[in-house]
Amino acid sequence: MRRAVVLLSGGIDSSTTLAIAKSENYAVTALSFAYGQRHKSELAAAKSLAQDLGVTDHYVVNIDLRVFGKSALTDDIPVPIHRSHEEMARDIAPTYVPARNTIFLAYAISLAEVREADDIFIGVNALDYGGYPDCRPEYLNAFQNMARLATARCVNGDHSLRINAPLLNKTKSEIIRIGFDLGVDFAKTVTCYQANEDGLACGQCDACILRRQGFEINGLIDPTRYVGPKQIT
Amino acid sequence: MRRAVVLLSGGIDSSTTLAIAKSENYAVTALSFAYGQRHKSELAAAKSLAQDLGVTDHYVVNIDLRVFGKSALTDDIPVPIHRSHEEMARDIAPTYVPARNTIFLAYAISLAEVREADDIFIGVNALDYGGYPDCRPEYLNAFQNMARLATARCVNGDHSLRINAPLLNKTKSEIIRIGFDLGVDFAKTVTCYQANEDGLACGQCDACILRRQGFEINGLIDPTRYVGPKQIT
Repeated sequence: MRRAVVLLSGGIDSSTTLAIAKSENYAVTALSFAYGQRHKSELAAAKSLAQDLGVTDHYVVNIDLRVFGKSALTDDIPVPIHRSHEEMARDIAPTYVPARNTIFLAYAISLAEVREADDIFIGVNALDYGGYPDCRPEYLNAFQNMARLATARCVNGDHSLRINAPLLNKTKSEIIRIGFDLGVDFAKTVTCYQANEDGLACGQCDACILRRQGFEINGLIDPTRYVGPKQIT
Repeated sequence: MRRAVVLLSGGIDSSTTLAIAKSENYAVTALSFAYGQRHKSELAAAKSLAQDLGVTDHYVVNIDLRVFGKSALTDDIPVPIHRSHEEMARDIAPTYVPARNTIFLAYAISLAEVREADDIFIGVNALDYGGYPDCRPEYLNAFQNMARLATARCVNGDHSLRINAPLLNKTKSEIIRIGFDLGVDFAKTVTCYQANEDGLACGQCDACILRRQGFEINGLIDPTRYVGPKQIT
């Protein structure tokens, strides 16, 4: 049985990616990260979603990205709200965490070596979040090239590492359709950049706006629970 | 003034690398990692060596590599002792930590983004530790290629990241000569793979053997303090 390490944050994209890996009959090790002061509810979601999908091998690594500061996801910078698609596309959002995916993927290749996995799955997509440099195909290709030179299993063994990003060119609505068809329980997923400890969403940040629109396009009910009245621009 | 992030473990190689970066007039941010149950004395050495070289910006990141196990440096696997150069060169040593340098360098590029540094220095060398895949030039080149695609500063700004490994092709004796000439206080450096909490060395592991021979070739006194009688093969 082929083994894969799947990065799982507890959002729609990573949960759908996990469901894809399971549907392709991989034996899965899920890998989540506890970092910064936000997103604790995401981690609870990740644990529950992994259980739902029959994943018993789930690592949670504590990392402190706050030491590097400079992001609305880990620091006291406000999360931007009520932004249009044009505004989202214009600049790198302040929710960008420097080299976050590189740190996450570095841990993933370490775990892949120990677990004897040839495949890593990551739920990045280049369309909705075009502003993040580490969500682009050229970045992922370069990481894969590096990873194949980095570990004993690849260099001395008869193995190769693949970085799989099955959602890379999907829109949010396409991702929601795939996850829905694979039975992901979206009521558990946490998308909001500033969800509270119970996983209640703000309804106003980029992530909330893109999620809501993705459900609407599919004619699906978004089971997100909100902190207060939604104000979708 | 050019700024650099320098990975500093507290051993001879990283201390000499730090001295090289300082001699090239970089404003330096030192980056060390606390991991596993060993090497606490290395971290104390790193702090003292950074102070000696006038580095006031020194980050220590806690990471738990033990979750990934499978290494004599982080787990309960014995450190091999009394090995010849031939034995060291034959296989990847059990002191190999899967993807360690990739994780370290991933944090370094994150910190480089925040500190607005274009240069990262790492004290790896490919000769004495040929068995580690992530100490080879082809690995470092691939990492640099990836890093240039990973961060906003490189992708959207007018900057590029360089991974500098000035000791890559040096022997241990050459490194000791360089560090000596740059005034590194080798009495503070901790080399041993299984140094105790006070930094006392075993005198028997690969790292101790290579260090001692490096000092001998230079006709220098090795100021290493040992736990017990030295048994150099």
